[in-house]
Amino acid sequence: MKSLFIQRLAIIGVGLIGGSLARALKERDLVGEVVGVNRTRDSLARAMELGVIDHWTTSAAQGVRGANLVVVATPVVTIPRIVEDFASALESGAVVTDAGSVKGTVVGPCEAMMPEGVHFVGGHPIAGTEFSGVEASFATLYEGSRTILTPTERTDPEALELVRQVWEAVGSRVETMDVSTHDRVLAATSHLPHLIAYNVVNTLSDLEDDIRAEVFRYAAGGFRDFTRIASSDPAMWRDICVANRESILDILHRFRDALEVLTQRVQDGDRDGLYGTFARSKRTRDGILLSHKKPVESE
Amino acid sequence: MKSLFIQRLAIIGVGLIGGSLARALKERDLVGEVVGVNRTRDSLARAMELGVIDHWTTSAAQGVRGANLVVVATPVVTIPRIVEDFASALESGAVVTDAGSVKGTVVGPCEAMMPEGVHFVGGHPIAGTEFSGVEASFATLYEGSRTILTPTERTDPEALELVRQVWEAVGSRVETMDVSTHDRVLAATSHLPHLIAYNVVNTLSDLEDDIRAEVFRYAAGGFRDFTRIASSDPAMWRDICVANRESILDILHRFRDALEVLTQRVQDGDRDGLYGTFARSKRTRDGILLSHKKPVESE
Repeated sequence: MKSLFIQRLAIIGVGLIGGSLARALKERDLVGEVVGVNRTRDSLARAMELGVIDHWTTSAAQGVRGANLVVVATPVVTIPRIVEDFASALESGAVVTDAGSVKGTVVGPCEAMMPEGVHFVGGHPIAGTEFSGVEASFATLYEGSRTILTPTERTDPEALELVRQVWEAVGSRVETMDVSTHDRVLAATSHLPHLIAYNVVNTLSDLEDDIRAEVFRYAAGGFRDFTRIASSDPAMWRDICVANRESILDILHRFRDALEVLTQRVQDGDRDGLYGTFARSKRTRDGILLSHKKPVESE
Repeated sequence: MKSLFIQRLAIIGVGLIGGSLARALKERDLVGEVVGVNRTRDSLARAMELGVIDHWTTSAAQGVRGANLVVVATPVVTIPRIVEDFASALESGAVVTDAGSVKGTVVGPCEAMMPEGVHFVGGHPIAGTEFSGVEASFATLYEGSRTILTPTERTDPEALELVRQVWEAVGSRVETMDVSTHDRVLAATSHLPHLIAYNVVNTLSDLEDDIRAEVFRYAAGGFRDFTRIASSDPAMWRDICVANRESILDILHRFRDALEVLTQRVQDGDRDGLYGTFARSKRTRDGILLSHKKPVESE
């Protein structure tokens, strides 16, 4: 295994995710120079001031010239279009990866656009905070996180190894999964809980005025934990819903069907049915926590 | 306002809730003697050993003799039946309160059973841990908690004041609410989130084997927070669903209707609709947290 060093790294989308990766690699002296690409100059100027990047351009095609590794860390729905913008400017031997939280709409199209001798590896670092932008980036964001890579039969083994080394170097535990499994797993573990939390908050907002006031007065505690994720970036979640539509619809339908059964049991005052429902959930949840002690951030 | 001292306190149901109240009042020298009533001798013997109670009996009617204050801290569905068992043994001037997390099925029937000169006050200390039983009880459980009292037009003002003083003395912030408002507010802020969390866990359990294994492997992080409450006592939640059936059905139907709209937006790839849904939720949730800083445990 070659020791990791990226001579020239291009970060397309210098925000929380891209900026934190650049910081983490720089701090470890694992990168020669970092080129940042954003649509706006202001954020790039700020990234320069913060020392997150060494050069900047608003042109992705210019930014990727001479880059050994290109990391696309823009909103997930924009990734294929941006890759198309710069694909022809990539130099042979370059590796391109992304940080999108949905893979089905990204990996196939991006692989297909790679020129001869350039390899794409789909990636999803599962990390984040409630903040966004390069100002919010920090070198330790990925420590203790997980990153899922989604190789296909077309994936170059050396390119996969390079991307794995990059994420491991910044403290992330890397696992691989096929594209479809990734999207279904994330729909269940991350996208469903987010949509549910948004929906709980909106349900309470729609209560009649008198009761809503009391509800929000009493809602600060358990509600705060439960709906923490309902403060996430609306644009990101809109994009995830668009990009992972099929898997999200599938899990939403399953959730709805289970909720119908539960609601019927409440309606019927079905004591045994209710006990069974809750006891099963408790056994499952307690079992998961016993077998997986390590905490991981979800997105 | 008279200074608080309970000559003889009867705790019916010496578990986490009743035991912690007894401990807290004893620690502050606010009680003369505590009589504990449970169905089983073993738990009473343990409560004696722990110094939580001074006397015990398995007969509620015996236990309440000579008591100035009776606190019924048994499962919510059992409260009216237990009060019926001991009501005729209450002495004039006694005050009876409860700690049930639903009030509609408790307050009316219990008020109606009070003999001349005895007063009932509905109460709900919003506190708890994931553990139960007298072994789990501790004197500081109520510090920083909220207690909701639900007076009616029949409630004696002095009895209400006594119960308020008791909960305030052990560190709880006391608020009053009418019975129906209490049950609707708790359905929205506590019962709905619990049922949703149970339902999320069961939905994931029902996934196909291959995907379920991955889901539970990745589910340890955000999932852990989100579904913490799905480890709550199944019997308690069965009882709450039975006791607060109408308010729970109402909020479940509202939640389901909102989820249908959201699901349709995902189905349609309705970007503006999705953004609007998420942005509204984020505004609401951020607004609540801004205006209510104090954390409160939910049950």
